[in-house]
Amino acid sequence: MTNQSLTAAVLIIGDEILSGRTRDSNSGHIAAFLTEIGIDLKEIRVVPDEEDRIVAALNALRAAYTYVFTTGGIGPTHDDITADAVAKAFGIAIEHHPDAVEILRRHYATPEELTEARLRMARIPVGATLIDNPVSKAPGFHIGNVFVMAGVPKIMQAMLLNVEKELEVGVPVQSITVDCPFGEGMIGTALAEVARTHPLVSIGSYPILAARNFSTKLVIRSRDPVALAAAKAAVEAMLAAIIRDKAGDSTLTDY
Amino acid sequence: MTNQSLTAAVLIIGDEILSGRTRDSNSGHIAAFLTEIGIDLKEIRVVPDEEDRIVAALNALRAAYTYVFTTGGIGPTHDDITADAVAKAFGIAIEHHPDAVEILRRHYATPEELTEARLRMARIPVGATLIDNPVSKAPGFHIGNVFVMAGVPKIMQAMLLNVEKELEVGVPVQSITVDCPFGEGMIGTALAEVARTHPLVSIGSYPILAARNFSTKLVIRSRDPVALAAAKAAVEAMLAAIIRDKAGDSTLTDY
Repeated sequence: MTNQSLTAAVLIIGDEILSGRTRDSNSGHIAAFLTEIGIDLKEIRVVPDEEDRIVAALNALRAAYTYVFTTGGIGPTHDDITADAVAKAFGIAIEHHPDAVEILRRHYATPEELTEARLRMARIPVGATLIDNPVSKAPGFHIGNVFVMAGVPKIMQAMLLNVEKELEVGVPVQSITVDCPFGEGMIGTALAEVARTHPLVSIGSYPILAARNFSTKLVIRSRDPVALAAAKAAVEAMLAAIIRDKAGDSTLTDY
Repeated sequence: MTNQSLTAAVLIIGDEILSGRTRDSNSGHIAAFLTEIGIDLKEIRVVPDEEDRIVAALNALRAAYTYVFTTGGIGPTHDDITADAVAKAFGIAIEHHPDAVEILRRHYATPEELTEARLRMARIPVGATLIDNPVSKAPGFHIGNVFVMAGVPKIMQAMLLNVEKELEVGVPVQSITVDCPFGEGMIGTALAEVARTHPLVSIGSYPILAARNFSTKLVIRSRDPVALAAAKAAVEAMLAAIIRDKAGDSTLTDY
């Protein structure tokens, strides 16, 4: 693939993912979003609700990638420690942000409604800018190259749309999927040769198992449309040759 | 929660997860499996099909946790580089493993069927032991504290069952879920006090958004059944008090 420099990591914060109780859908959503705008997601990490682990992961990721997107841990309960961990990772203070307090005050009209717990959601690392939350008001925030979002998928998705304008966008990677009716073991050697002779594309090979038969999705990806088309033609020619040469092989749909 | 020392990490290897094309289900499956047998999953990482990134992640994780489980990248195509990366991480050679070759030879009867690509799946780091694959034959492997499994969910799940006997098992964490009909903001302060006074349990608070109303799942977890029961009673008493005191508050189902 052609070089480009915009990279990202996703940091999912939450014991509930690590216990298997909740299946994470946020990382897949962010992955697809970033691919569309030409930012290469290079790593996803899931860590528990433990401050030292969040701090360590955040500092590793923000040093390594253009952007870091976190989800989870910014609600009003005792296990919501992400904002404190981000402040600690950056070595800065955390305070009630006046704009965040005002947003909550407009939504929760009386002091009884604006509980101490809800007010906790206005605690933001000093110097961060807020990310609007049209769903439930309490904002996310953005500091340095780190975007801190909610864990509830509907809220995270709304925040992500508001984050988009803050991001530098790259040239999107285009992809073409070629369906191969055989298992990977029947195409591996020829496919490696196609990959070797088409260095401007990356070719991923993904086995599909249905009943006891394997087929393969071949996904060709590149930022260069000419290289993409050439690789597609080469893959299709490769498959045609296998169909011609291997017809009748009883292991065509084995792995 | 009571101390215990069995920890684990999951390392998911594959560009297709990072591009958003494929949603990872393996980490959630392994998470639930480990919780059942009392091993604490502490981290999940997803990395691309790039050798240096796989090596770096594997070396970080195997040094930090009791066990590491990898999925993906052990098939017959050019983008399957996990076995080589594991060998490099351990600083050992990789060779065709005689037992793995024999397994493939029994399944693929003729030299035409046992293609060069399929034979590639018998390349195993020297000193590793094989993990049986009842679905498609080509084995996974186990070296040191690292278990290397396929990415196809059905194959990974079958391998994981064969891995179980190799693992030390811990005392499973028990969990109780209490449904709270209010949003987290209404309970956060009282819940923090319950959490503070019940140090042998961990209490997770998970917002549920349905239409525009929030409710909350309170998940109490512990290895100590007496502490678990006491915390459940305290949470239920807390909710009863809120119902008594806050009836009529129009923000009960806000965040």
